[in-house]
Amino acid sequence: MVNQFKPSRAGLLDETDRVLLEKRRKVLGDLYPLFYDHPVHIVRAEGSRIYDAQGREYLDVYNNVPSVGHANRRVAEAVFAQMTTMNTHTRYLQDGIVQYSQRFLGTFPGHLDHVIYTNSGSEANDLGIRIAQGAARRTGVIVTRNAYHGTTQLMSGLSPENGSKMPLSPFVRLVDPPDAYRLGAENAAAAFAAEVERAIWDLKRYGMGTAALLIDSIMSTDGIFTDPAGLLDPAFRAVREAGGFVIADEVQPGMGRTGEHMWGFQRHTAEVDMVTGGKPLANGMPMGCLVLGSHLSNAFASENRYFNTFGGNPATIAAADAVLSEIEDRDLVANAARVGGQLLDGLRALAQKFPVIGDVRGAGLFVGVEIVADSVTKEPDGELAHLLVNSLREEGVLISAVGPWGQVLKVRPPLVFTDTDAAAFLRVFEDVLQSVSE
Amino acid sequence: MVNQFKPSRAGLLDETDRVLLEKRRKVLGDLYPLFYDHPVHIVRAEGSRIYDAQGREYLDVYNNVPSVGHANRRVAEAVFAQMTTMNTHTRYLQDGIVQYSQRFLGTFPGHLDHVIYTNSGSEANDLGIRIAQGAARRTGVIVTRNAYHGTTQLMSGLSPENGSKMPLSPFVRLVDPPDAYRLGAENAAAAFAAEVERAIWDLKRYGMGTAALLIDSIMSTDGIFTDPAGLLDPAFRAVREAGGFVIADEVQPGMGRTGEHMWGFQRHTAEVDMVTGGKPLANGMPMGCLVLGSHLSNAFASENRYFNTFGGNPATIAAADAVLSEIEDRDLVANAARVGGQLLDGLRALAQKFPVIGDVRGAGLFVGVEIVADSVTKEPDGELAHLLVNSLREEGVLISAVGPWGQVLKVRPPLVFTDTDAAAFLRVFEDVLQSVSE
Repeated sequence: MVNQFKPSRAGLLDETDRVLLEKRRKVLGDLYPLFYDHPVHIVRAEGSRIYDAQGREYLDVYNNVPSVGHANRRVAEAVFAQMTTMNTHTRYLQDGIVQYSQRFLGTFPGHLDHVIYTNSGSEANDLGIRIAQGAARRTGVIVTRNAYHGTTQLMSGLSPENGSKMPLSPFVRLVDPPDAYRLGAENAAAAFAAEVERAIWDLKRYGMGTAALLIDSIMSTDGIFTDPAGLLDPAFRAVREAGGFVIADEVQPGMGRTGEHMWGFQRHTAEVDMVTGGKPLANGMPMGCLVLGSHLSNAFASENRYFNTFGGNPATIAAADAVLSEIEDRDLVANAARVGGQLLDGLRALAQKFPVIGDVRGAGLFVGVEIVADSVTKEPDGELAHLLVNSLREEGVLISAVGPWGQVLKVRPPLVFTDTDAAAFLRVFEDVLQSVSE
Repeated sequence: MVNQFKPSRAGLLDETDRVLLEKRRKVLGDLYPLFYDHPVHIVRAEGSRIYDAQGREYLDVYNNVPSVGHANRRVAEAVFAQMTTMNTHTRYLQDGIVQYSQRFLGTFPGHLDHVIYTNSGSEANDLGIRIAQGAARRTGVIVTRNAYHGTTQLMSGLSPENGSKMPLSPFVRLVDPPDAYRLGAENAAAAFAAEVERAIWDLKRYGMGTAALLIDSIMSTDGIFTDPAGLLDPAFRAVREAGGFVIADEVQPGMGRTGEHMWGFQRHTAEVDMVTGGKPLANGMPMGCLVLGSHLSNAFASENRYFNTFGGNPATIAAADAVLSEIEDRDLVANAARVGGQLLDGLRALAQKFPVIGDVRGAGLFVGVEIVADSVTKEPDGELAHLLVNSLREEGVLISAVGPWGQVLKVRPPLVFTDTDAAAFLRVFEDVLQSVSE
């Protein structure tokens, strides 16, 4: 994990936090790292703000799960109303899941006409890969070089971002993401298609064939690559021509975040075979989904049983429905475009002033700021990015970093982020850049 | 699935339900079967009662997710309070998760001192197997012959209950469950240990070795085997002596259901290495957990990254904490023992009267009623069990059936089930038995 607290620094914490940290270590152990050199002890949140135990306010420029705002009352009320009415599994006839599914599927291209509910993006990706491998009668899967797709055993084998200690599965091939900053915008799409074609050839040569390209359409963990629009289309076509399926992992870019469409892949093409969702779907109620064509779903059903106890339960569906209403009523997709544009402009202005900013790229409220040691060689500077993340935290602004060297600042606030929030972020960021440049 | 509506019967439904069914099929498809020959269209529930769209009341003798009662207000209020305060992931310091984890771990034997939160029993089992295989440096896994352990790819390969169309993983060995009804109570434990020892030998012979025995300690899908107490201890010892880990899958028997202890395995032994939980943990909020020794958890952490976005989120933890409070304050473990005892007594009295009841077995509020075609040969009668399930549904009582032939009625009501509820169930069941015997 790029942005991780080192327990050896516990001495820097105040007494209360140190005691809590020690208790936490006893019950949760090493598998539960914390963000930041100086962890944030949070007790309350609202909209785009988080408050710590001392009452200090933080601007949240990172969290995408509370997509329609921390402590969103409409979502909480919908969940409470449903939990006090009825909340059970999907093997009874129920109105809510049918109504929501119709509404939800209405946000997708028409050929994606079935939805399967899970409790996480991991479960959704796991199922998507099984369905692709079954339908293609092949096993090969292509992912980007620093991809992350989830926590199950199957997904861990497809998630190189976890690091070299965790082996990839033998049927996986890695492709370099389309880094337009280094390749040039005009070459990125073709370079990516060539990478994917090489992987297809390789999987064929090893007798596995290509079942799927599983891809986060904004390539979050690879470093956030958004441009040019249409970027992924040639690669997707190559996969489909080879008889494989394109699975867009929309856990990060989905649900209006990119500011133009509801789903990130739509920035590049509509030609995908499956879509998986997770984090922002229900504003923090555990929920994932797999959206696909009915031919794929029903073919899978003819040879498999799949029942997910909590998947599509009424309380989660009520939350998800309220999230869609919030997005529509508050015009949050347009908000993401407008405020995201303001962030891009402001960050690009800062890039003129501070040469450590090598590149600023993004779509809507998902912006990457690449930090470099040298603006000519474009040498990534993960160490400086780490310092910036932690300096911002001290100044009351929460972000994180991604990319193979942790060199790309991840600017990904809740969708309710306002013009004022953006201006506040840019102001603090400029101060922090100034202080590290002195 | 044993208890499944056939879409060809849609003509039997009333107009409203038929229209809803058709809409449901269009968005959810064949992967979403319904219970009962005549599906129940539910709109409201409370305690141990469910209400359909016509206002008809059903006695719920099946659902274990709403363990502290359908529409439990205390749980709903805890979730609402947390959702309107703060609900985010675990990479910030937070008080709730630490307090709950201390309390929750207090319900386990002391050597199980770490907990990892997931969103489902599937995710918990998936992780448990990965940890066992990593720690044992072996791959073999033993499960019971009709086991079901979840929906991920890894779990599907370990879940023979899914049926013969879904292949098992090559590293899996199946063992016959200890069917005391057929083996005799005095032989069941030794027979099961012998089965497990044979599987251990076989896994060794094939060069895989035994990483884990993954077992639902009440063997729900195998047909519910509860007696004699201590039944599983010799098999568990064999696994541990062979260097494997025992993983108790407590998704079904856990959280007080068996009426004596909080966890089903405690009926037989305390000597388990990991425990997984799911369904009843948070009364319907999606939640799973893996409880294990800190040496296993920290060893896994030293070679792996694991982050679960929703796992252990504050709203789910708040629900789980309220569930523990309900169990304690309403003395629901003792209630399970008392009312479960009443069910066992009543069902055994019915068995005297109706020879189709071959066996009645159970612990607390988890009772199996085995239906046989012949009380001497003990030939299972899944068809009659199916008729009984559906007749009960028509009479306003919801149960289901399990076992390799669907021959065991599954009597597993919410833990708030009362003496009066039990008496009502017994009365209706007697009528139904009478009517099918005529």
